[in-house]
Amino acid sequence: MILALDETNVDKAMVIANETAQFLDAIKINWPLVLSGGPEIITRLSDLSDVICDFKVADIPNTVRLIVEGAVSRGASGVIVHAFPGSDSLIAAKEAAGGAEIYAVTEMSHPGGMEFTAKHAEEMALVGIKCNVDGFIAPGTRPDRIRAIRKIAGDKEIMSPGIGTQGGDAMEAIEAGADHVIVGRSIYGSANPREIASELCRRIS
Amino acid sequence: MILALDETNVDKAMVIANETAQFLDAIKINWPLVLSGGPEIITRLSDLSDVICDFKVADIPNTVRLIVEGAVSRGASGVIVHAFPGSDSLIAAKEAAGGAEIYAVTEMSHPGGMEFTAKHAEEMALVGIKCNVDGFIAPGTRPDRIRAIRKIAGDKEIMSPGIGTQGGDAMEAIEAGADHVIVGRSIYGSANPREIASELCRRIS
Repeated sequence: MILALDETNVDKAMVIANETAQFLDAIKINWPLVLSGGPEIITRLSDLSDVICDFKVADIPNTVRLIVEGAVSRGASGVIVHAFPGSDSLIAAKEAAGGAEIYAVTEMSHPGGMEFTAKHAEEMALVGIKCNVDGFIAPGTRPDRIRAIRKIAGDKEIMSPGIGTQGGDAMEAIEAGADHVIVGRSIYGSANPREIASELCRRIS
Repeated sequence: MILALDETNVDKAMVIANETAQFLDAIKINWPLVLSGGPEIITRLSDLSDVICDFKVADIPNTVRLIVEGAVSRGASGVIVHAFPGSDSLIAAKEAAGGAEIYAVTEMSHPGGMEFTAKHAEEMALVGIKCNVDGFIAPGTRPDRIRAIRKIAGDKEIMSPGIGTQGGDAMEAIEAGADHVIVGRSIYGSANPREIASELCRRIS
């Protein structure tokens, strides 16, 4: 289980991370936490858990390289990048990652994701395979889409967000082919993050 | 003229910004500088010039909102977002921007940009118009593509990167419909950024 730590108050974020780390495979953070607390937060969290930087990198190859290098040098174990900027950007991400992992987003789970990304999800997954990414992000709210990406992904990792508050069910996502479920608000927004994390962890293992 | 300050050494970046600001309409920065120097760099640069955060935001609406709010609260005058995550993400960016401007990327100028983005460039520009973005990014290396986006953009701003080292010509881009040219390495990579900025500024005004 991966915690999406979408809390922008750094002190609160650190408390939640401390309380839940023992039940987690990784902590996933996004840019808002870096904008509020500075990039040092990556290093601080990496002392507690693996950190996946969900930076949804979507730039030209040289900028992708600099972002991935920056995240990894701060302690990230993985970086999430978009597949839609194409093969050269994905290859740049893989080359910059060193021992860290690169996960590609193919399809986005919000309504706007249907306008452009859903049309090309399988095609983008194939580009990801060609560029040797380590895994994919597939929507936990749509098990049929996890199944579709699993067919292409082979034995690569699939991580599925949208579990809990957003409506996705952890067991359904895992049965559909997800290796890791990503849980956010249900944990960090609860009065007792530790208890919820422990309970969810027990339920899916 | 906009300076793409793609220098990750914060001290060097500040020196270049100080030397060139008087010739610039804005300074454009990207995530690598935030990852190396912290988000405070946005505020420091905003004392010298308008700052456009070229964050190529490509996320779900709530995360887009948090990123745009974070950048604007640090002093950004504009934020660059991707159009491909769809209308709801663009609307979230506009709502979060307050008085700041939102620019949408339609087509990316690197080779991988042909794989997915170029196919939908006009369509994404139309989504941008519908969501009332303030302007678009169009490749300075391809004047014909600036013309195509100008037809859709009406009187909205067009900013064109890729001028100078990457091969784009400032006057050609302006003649094709760009309001602002974005120059990076030719200025920040030169031995005398001030002189180059002054000369370029004179040439296009």
